[in-house]
Amino acid sequence: MIKKLFAEFFGTFWLVFGGCGSAIFASQIAPASNGQLGILLLGVALAFGLTVLTMAYAVGHISGGHFNPAVSFGLLAGGRFPGKDLLPYIVAQCVGAIAAAAALSFINGGSGDGSAGAFASNFYGEAVYFGKSYSLGAAFLTEFLLTTFFLIIILGATDKFANGKFAGIAIGLGLTLIHLISIPITNTSVNPARSLSQAIFAGSFALSQVWLFWVAPILGGITGGLIYKFLLQKNDVEVA
Amino acid sequence: MIKKLFAEFFGTFWLVFGGCGSAIFASQIAPASNGQLGILLLGVALAFGLTVLTMAYAVGHISGGHFNPAVSFGLLAGGRFPGKDLLPYIVAQCVGAIAAAAALSFINGGSGDGSAGAFASNFYGEAVYFGKSYSLGAAFLTEFLLTTFFLIIILGATDKFANGKFAGIAIGLGLTLIHLISIPITNTSVNPARSLSQAIFAGSFALSQVWLFWVAPILGGITGGLIYKFLLQKNDVEVA
Amino acid sequence: MIKKLFAEFFGTFWLVFGGCGSAIFASQIAPASNGQLGILLLGVALAFGLTVLTMAYAVGHISGGHFNPAVSFGLLAGGRFPGKDLLPYIVAQCVGAIAAAAALSFINGGSGDGSAGAFASNFYGEAVYFGKSYSLGAAFLTEFLLTTFFLIIILGATDKFANGKFAGIAIGLGLTLIHLISIPITNTSVNPARSLSQAIFAGSFALSQVWLFWVAPILGGITGGLIYKFLLQKNDVEVA
Amino acid sequence: MIKKLFAEFFGTFWLVFGGCGSAIFASQIAPASNGQLGILLLGVALAFGLTVLTMAYAVGHISGGHFNPAVSFGLLAGGRFPGKDLLPYIVAQCVGAIAAAAALSFINGGSGDGSAGAFASNFYGEAVYFGKSYSLGAAFLTEFLLTTFFLIIILGATDKFANGKFAGIAIGLGLTLIHLISIPITNTSVNPARSLSQAIFAGSFALSQVWLFWVAPILGGITGGLIYKFLLQKNDVEVA
Repeated sequence: MIKKLFAEFFGTFWLVFGGCGSAIFASQIAPASNGQLGILLLGVALAFGLTVLTMAYAVGHISGGHFNPAVSFGLLAGGRFPGKDLLPYIVAQCVGAIAAAAALSFINGGSGDGSAGAFASNFYGEAVYFGKSYSLGAAFLTEFLLTTFFLIIILGATDKFANGKFAGIAIGLGLTLIHLISIPITNTSVNPARSLSQAIFAGSFALSQVWLFWVAPILGGITGGLIYKFLLQKNDVEVA
Repeated sequence: MIKKLFAEFFGTFWLVFGGCGSAIFASQIAPASNGQLGILLLGVALAFGLTVLTMAYAVGHISGGHFNPAVSFGLLAGGRFPGKDLLPYIVAQCVGAIAAAAALSFINGGSGDGSAGAFASNFYGEAVYFGKSYSLGAAFLTEFLLTTFFLIIILGATDKFANGKFAGIAIGLGLTLIHLISIPITNTSVNPARSLSQAIFAGSFALSQVWLFWVAPILGGITGGLIYKFLLQKNDVEVA
Repeated sequence: MIKKLFAEFFGTFWLVFGGCGSAIFASQIAPASNGQLGILLLGVALAFGLTVLTMAYAVGHISGGHFNPAVSFGLLAGGRFPGKDLLPYIVAQCVGAIAAAAALSFINGGSGDGSAGAFASNFYGEAVYFGKSYSLGAAFLTEFLLTTFFLIIILGATDKFANGKFAGIAIGLGLTLIHLISIPITNTSVNPARSLSQAIFAGSFALSQVWLFWVAPILGGITGGLIYKFLLQKNDVEVA
Repeated sequence: MIKKLFAEFFGTFWLVFGGCGSAIFASQIAPASNGQLGILLLGVALAFGLTVLTMAYAVGHISGGHFNPAVSFGLLAGGRFPGKDLLPYIVAQCVGAIAAAAALSFINGGSGDGSAGAFASNFYGEAVYFGKSYSLGAAFLTEFLLTTFFLIIILGATDKFANGKFAGIAIGLGLTLIHLISIPITNTSVNPARSLSQAIFAGSFALSQVWLFWVAPILGGITGGLIYKFLLQKNDVEVA
């Protein structure tokens, strides 16, 4: 069990360090004379996905590779994860995420100015980071739906009747896709640990909005787990 | 059968929500002082492909993972899909696509201004969205050829003599490639369900042009299916 | 044999239609008010690679998936391709490439203004397309070295002691990498068929330079084949 | 053994030629009227990763595919590489890297102006290349942590209990991810051979800083090797 928790700790550290780190350090690099050189929101989306792809192949065989409380809840709902492990997994994930945010803050020489979206924190509603604001309802539905489909992808790609060895690619690039859609809407969470760690360092504004990034992803994760289990998953009788 | 239709419903929902959603929300993010930050047409192309890649590994083992009426027609022509399932599949695909467009409209707070290309709708001819117009003939040939090759890729990558486990990667990234070529020409369809759903919300202009995005992809899909079956596919005698 | 030649025809058509097409239609989309929206040279590099990745999984099991005279020469040098098939393969590749260029010219409404780099043609020397010129020697060395390594990748990834099922990914993304390095230098050939087809439509300037994009890639391909065979490939005695 | 050293020579040549070459030739292409066309830091990150992905599948079965002294040290610490091979491997890697830098210098017509970051050299501290400076401590921690996780990915993905055939994808795209995070901080090393080769050609400023890009990656590599071995790796008793 201790190795599973180490795997979740290092995996979630990597998710936050790589995903939020690329957003903080590299998304915008615009020397006046050369136009934009940075990795853009496209590069940030790719980075988040690659943290999961790489760690899924590296430590997925140890802990299952959740790195996300909403995933743990969803796998529990889908019947693939024992409830007794839920709390330890979530604690390891949050500790890893917070450690990564601390390292990012040291490297960056601070954690932003407290405005919406600073230090890669999530936001909704009147908070405007990318030029257009989205309502609380729009943000909630986005986070809910994206986490629902994230769990359908996870449960489907790891189904015993699927090509399970490719699950790391499908799940990692699925997280890239999720970011391609939704960074402008909420800065993309679908992961309560990632939202918590950035909010702690970004300050009171982000902390006041962090509730949504626990409630919506966890509800979405559970919904995705139930949809896969009851509407999609073949039972052995159907197969035989 | 009902699980197959659920798989097509969720898969096509995801294709439209992810592909068209990334185009609507994230392709252009340009705060004045920082240059372009958005995911560009490159990110939109990647998003469309990843919707298919992820769902192919997630639910491909349930329904075959078509998510596209032109693909269903092409697989029928290629001898890989029974004709009696064609209509239910297409209905499930269109319902999924329309549901996704409705969710996108809610999140976006509306569905554009009705101009060509608005709300990620397809267009041809005098309609100019990306700075250069292409004729009806150019648009038709583009959609026809790209769907033809899409079906050659699908039938080839899932051939019993091919590395079938990689088909999800080849097919998904094939759709990315198709978008890399043709977004400026037609906003890229190759998928009648995706064109219909966006046209319903984008309004009368898009609806008046949607016929091409049913006719050309379906003809292309059938052509691709026949090309693979008669010009490329090894028969068992050749192999033995 | 006829199915092999069809596979090379369709594969090389797809390489030119997808790779050169994405360069012609989508690399630069810059409405004044929004900054650059196009797929950039990055998207063009990805497109070229994905043409090979997709066709390698689709028809690689039929013809071996060369789609490139320099690859056919290199595989011959490396001992993996029979000399009697060389000429028919190259003819099928060139015919496929030229057919694709014709389709591109129709869709584009013409084939450029004859300047260096127009219609995705290759160039060297005083010809300046991307703001800096490279000498004939620099262009030659670049095309030679990149094709040498392309063949090392192809021969290595398809070696019987390697993970051969991943060869389509390694080879396709290898071609993407080659384009990431060298589009600004020569518009990247490493493929005589692709250079010929674009030069025929781009006009006399491109035709006057096309010799380099036959000589350097073919010499590089042969060199890569020999390097792999004599310096890298394990013989069965070493393995046993 | 000689074939292993050839494999490390060609692999590290390719890493430097492709990764640093794409940075030098293609990252910034900005004709005044069209906005940025280059591959951006995103394309450079992709190029570095693809050098390793392609060579891992091409020659990984020959030498193990290190292409990096810090990886060789880390694999030694993790118990996967015999100490007697360490020095020959590092020599072959450095010779390959320097040969690639020489080829880049010839093609480029010189090796930059000696400023920080010129010729894709690494830097830290007051050296400012991308608009913001990071302290020596920040640079050291970044290189250390990223190499630590790189080795966790390498050891995990090649673990006998993992899906080892996917290791080339996980490790290559892991290197892409590392670059997505850290190009603006240090121009990203995590590889002493790559830093040495560029510094030799970039001149005295880069040479005066190259020590950090030997010390931090090697310490990080060893740390990653030890973390994987002692905190994560299952022993056979646990599995049985």
